[in-house]
Amino acid sequence: MKLLTYKTQDSDSRLGFIHNNMVVDMEDFGGISNFPLPNDMLELIDMGIEVIAEINNLVDDTREVDFENISYALNDVEILAPIEKPRKNIIGIGLNYTEHVAESARTLDTTGKLPQKPIIFSKPPTTVTGPNTNILLNSKLTQQLDWEVELAVVIGKKGKYVAKENALDHVFGYTVINDISARDCRREGQWIVSKGQDTFAPMGPFLVTKDEIENPHNLNLSLRLNGIEKQNSNTQFLLFNINDLIEDLSTVFTIEPGDIIATGTPAGVGAGRNPQEWMKDGDIVECYVENIGTIVNTVKEI
Amino acid sequence: MKLLTYKTQDSDSRLGFIHNNMVVDMEDFGGISNFPLPNDMLELIDMGIEVIAEINNLVDDTREVDFENISYALNDVEILAPIEKPRKNIIGIGLNYTEHVAESARTLDTTGKLPQKPIIFSKPPTTVTGPNTNILLNSKLTQQLDWEVELAVVIGKKGKYVAKENALDHVFGYTVINDISARDCRREGQWIVSKGQDTFAPMGPFLVTKDEIENPHNLNLSLRLNGIEKQNSNTQFLLFNINDLIEDLSTVFTIEPGDIIATGTPAGVGAGRNPQEWMKDGDIVECYVENIGTIVNTVKEI
Repeated sequence: MKLLTYKTQDSDSRLGFIHNNMVVDMEDFGGISNFPLPNDMLELIDMGIEVIAEINNLVDDTREVDFENISYALNDVEILAPIEKPRKNIIGIGLNYTEHVAESARTLDTTGKLPQKPIIFSKPPTTVTGPNTNILLNSKLTQQLDWEVELAVVIGKKGKYVAKENALDHVFGYTVINDISARDCRREGQWIVSKGQDTFAPMGPFLVTKDEIENPHNLNLSLRLNGIEKQNSNTQFLLFNINDLIEDLSTVFTIEPGDIIATGTPAGVGAGRNPQEWMKDGDIVECYVENIGTIVNTVKEI
Repeated sequence: MKLLTYKTQDSDSRLGFIHNNMVVDMEDFGGISNFPLPNDMLELIDMGIEVIAEINNLVDDTREVDFENISYALNDVEILAPIEKPRKNIIGIGLNYTEHVAESARTLDTTGKLPQKPIIFSKPPTTVTGPNTNILLNSKLTQQLDWEVELAVVIGKKGKYVAKENALDHVFGYTVINDISARDCRREGQWIVSKGQDTFAPMGPFLVTKDEIENPHNLNLSLRLNGIEKQNSNTQFLLFNINDLIEDLSTVFTIEPGDIIATGTPAGVGAGRNPQEWMKDGDIVECYVENIGTIVNTVKEI
């Protein structure tokens, strides 16, 4: 199921899903199905991944004509970040593709060694922005605004000390994140100012539930800046795959429904180029992950 | 006003305040005052700091006998963390007292230079625990469990680009945090695993609203381990004071009601001693901040 958070000209943000290339309102669909459904992504996630199969069954049992009054054309809605306000910071993973470890060590202050354990950082909920919004460039803070396309995992079930064999049981679905990074904003090596500024986590366009992703470890992902491809890889090259990450993270802290893990970016970031490249006002950055979709954001200097 | 989150043998967590050394239930007090009041600290904070003066007026207008049915002796309640589940990661500040900068550089991997800007990190909401609970020591993860007493600031009003002159307008109140740190859990220099494990942010016992703290930059703070004093300083020695921190943090990201800023720890941590000292199973650690109170937690190996 392709889930989304959206709004129309007349509504605040609402929860929906894609059916026959239309946006169906989730709460309204619950209404016509006599099956109460929420109007908020986190509330849906709290119902557990099992609810998705139930909703899919209800969709199969619904006549197409009955969708008419509860649907919108994709062009008639604004798609927002699937989880507009995460309950805690997004968990980011650094240096999780081999070539990106190498390019980072050439130009940033990392060691170049392959990490023995996942490198974890965080992005506050205030970093989240939609799939078609502006990324704010504050030139008083940074002259080195960079891009990072990533597959993000959304947790569906609470867990502590989760074994990697069972890790995917804790996944609700997947989305796309651009882990925007201001490379000159590290402080005593800490990355949160670099990666934590408002709008530094464009996300979306859809949260695709895991039943629709056959193998999360075989998804192409790529990034274009002003139409020119800058990153192109596949999640099969993740150093720590999703199972590893969930096992490790859940050893450190309890993972909870709605947690978002940005799994790391492949090679091709601006900091790793020769000469280095930074994003500037008006730049358009597109992030694509196979089976999920593309987010397109514009850099806006403030 | 000294606010607290508490529970009784018969109740889930509830919001209260201290009056005549008794715990008065906030929602029940609203009931007898014909002034609806919430049962959750974050909901109270969302009402704005102005509500505290109104509640204080109502308290003054209430006969002592009317408190009897809505009060508990302090010994009859369990005090929980004032904010049990923050809406985002706690914002931590590193290296914010001069002597702690020096001791850290002697024994950890920091540079020893006085920071030019606040060093920011984060602790997930799952680190929060109460003022009289266990700190969990996972010996598979760490052999270097350390203590850090800190004054924590709770934000009451949303802000972006807040000038330091106006910064205290955004404060709701203050509490005590022990910023527990597993020194051997840094990864590529990032601190979140070191500082982010479950139970690594004991907090409380009270959230003292700012009207009761004459000068947050003149508060003694100290820490005892098994009765022996390890840290003793005063918030007047903060390198970046609360005004500085709010100005800087709000430049990076929007600050929001309920945000918690742990302002940093003075000298005397275990990592800075010669020989170094680490906490072990059964250790009792007490953190005190003047005008707020003491939290007492026990280390428990798991």
